[in-house]
Amino acid sequence: MSSPLFGGIEAGGTKFVCAVGTDPDTLLHETRFPTTTPDETLRRALDFFRAIQRETPLAALGIASFGPIDLHPTSPTYGFITSTPKPGWANTDVVGFFARELGLPIGFDTDVNGAALGEYRWGAAQGLDTFLYLTIGTGIGGGAFVNGRLVHGLLHPEMGHIRLPRDPNRDPFEGICPYHGDCLEGLCSGPALAARWGQNAETLPADHPAWELQAHYLGLALATFICTLSPQRIILGGGVMNAPHLLPLVRTATQQALNGYIHVPAITEQIDAYIVAPGLGNRAGVLGAIALAEQTWKERSSL
Amino acid sequence: MSSPLFGGIEAGGTKFVCAVGTDPDTLLHETRFPTTTPDETLRRALDFFRAIQRETPLAALGIASFGPIDLHPTSPTYGFITSTPKPGWANTDVVGFFARELGLPIGFDTDVNGAALGEYRWGAAQGLDTFLYLTIGTGIGGGAFVNGRLVHGLLHPEMGHIRLPRDPNRDPFEGICPYHGDCLEGLCSGPALAARWGQNAETLPADHPAWELQAHYLGLALATFICTLSPQRIILGGGVMNAPHLLPLVRTATQQALNGYIHVPAITEQIDAYIVAPGLGNRAGVLGAIALAEQTWKERSSL
Repeated sequence: MSSPLFGGIEAGGTKFVCAVGTDPDTLLHETRFPTTTPDETLRRALDFFRAIQRETPLAALGIASFGPIDLHPTSPTYGFITSTPKPGWANTDVVGFFARELGLPIGFDTDVNGAALGEYRWGAAQGLDTFLYLTIGTGIGGGAFVNGRLVHGLLHPEMGHIRLPRDPNRDPFEGICPYHGDCLEGLCSGPALAARWGQNAETLPADHPAWELQAHYLGLALATFICTLSPQRIILGGGVMNAPHLLPLVRTATQQALNGYIHVPAITEQIDAYIVAPGLGNRAGVLGAIALAEQTWKERSSL
Repeated sequence: MSSPLFGGIEAGGTKFVCAVGTDPDTLLHETRFPTTTPDETLRRALDFFRAIQRETPLAALGIASFGPIDLHPTSPTYGFITSTPKPGWANTDVVGFFARELGLPIGFDTDVNGAALGEYRWGAAQGLDTFLYLTIGTGIGGGAFVNGRLVHGLLHPEMGHIRLPRDPNRDPFEGICPYHGDCLEGLCSGPALAARWGQNAETLPADHPAWELQAHYLGLALATFICTLSPQRIILGGGVMNAPHLLPLVRTATQQALNGYIHVPAITEQIDAYIVAPGLGNRAGVLGAIALAEQTWKERSSL
């Protein structure tokens, strides 16, 4: 066959999505199941890929995982999910398990870094060298691509936990983050919206004041990310962003937060092309995992 | 001669520092003068380098400049200081002037990116691939080095302008940034301290409550930069950091702001080696300009 076939796992705290394919137009198999114990969940993913391997060889496997995870290639716990509060999952050797059982090269990164790589490869970030992918859903997290590569650094970014100004007179809600209270995730994640308004984001009508406040905070957060990372584009994914009226509000709120300080046309004139939805829609996660596999395969091939 | 000689300009909004050398141990000539009009200031720098060129050829010139500046190599205004509020300096072609007059390759970047590169080359960031240099002085700005290269992206980072939570009951001071009021620079720059306390930072005694509050805000800011960039180290320079009691307070405040969320020994156990003073001291700026020259010369040599 001409193009190699890759496996991908979007390893989320709630569900796993496993797929096999080459690119967005060639996703041959896909399955999804809830995240239960590590043993049961990893076995179930393994069975899926083993069944496929009996028919067709895979070139590599990519895993885009919830975290925190260890990404240091020389660390003894490389490829582990490390200090997660998710019961049973702390110190789980994810990469080692699949490498041993499948005998494949494994690409491994955070779920949001995976999604960022997928958007770079086939979605809304093609051709850029510095951009940000942010998901606003059950949690809030950012994947950053800077100078042509995903950002790891000390650990990996944890963008949901930046602090924002909150005026208690306008907004007395103190946030739900167990570490920081009213950090970005504590104020703007799906569970934060549900706790604040007593109903899920999906049921809040478009004219509910929840959305102006949500956009206000997201605009402050994006302004901070712009001042820090200087991204060429920002991609907003995740379940909360499925509300179609939210994205235009966030664009305006980001301009208001910057208040003309970053004086470039991309922000002052062309914000609709600067803050965008994922080009891969809700397949960004699993396609990101496929992209991680492809990246690892290319790196191995060029050695 | 064995090692080539480089020129460097630390182009600040208040003063210019010009130097010639190869590295920190070989700074042969240095001069400094106030920043007046563009014509007078750039001519004065030119005269300095021309006099040296009559004796010894220079291999390249590096310019670490106040901004905002245009860093896009393909832009018609590449090498310009662009929309600065500094009178007379908006739309000044800095790179073009020196390239024409001296006939040298020119390395050009922000003052803080220059300082970051100098720290990478000879100072406190040697061997790292992702770190942050932050200056807290007349203004606040950050230079970021990610994946082995300085960050430019859309424009360049403007880290002084991130927003922070401020409790008006604890701190009624509304900040002095003309764009954002109480952003980081509006709360923590030297002029902000002077406006808030009615005296300059240098005259505030070590037990003045100013320092706890200053450290509190800087800790919040560093926590945000850690969550966003995941730096392997943070270097704090600038005049305000000359107060020797401030750095330990900032380390503690950063740990408090993160509240155990980023669970890595570098932060939880070895913070003294994680948040540090510049290895090059107050020569980080001009040595950064020399490092920009060296980088450009190496790039040209490898073509």
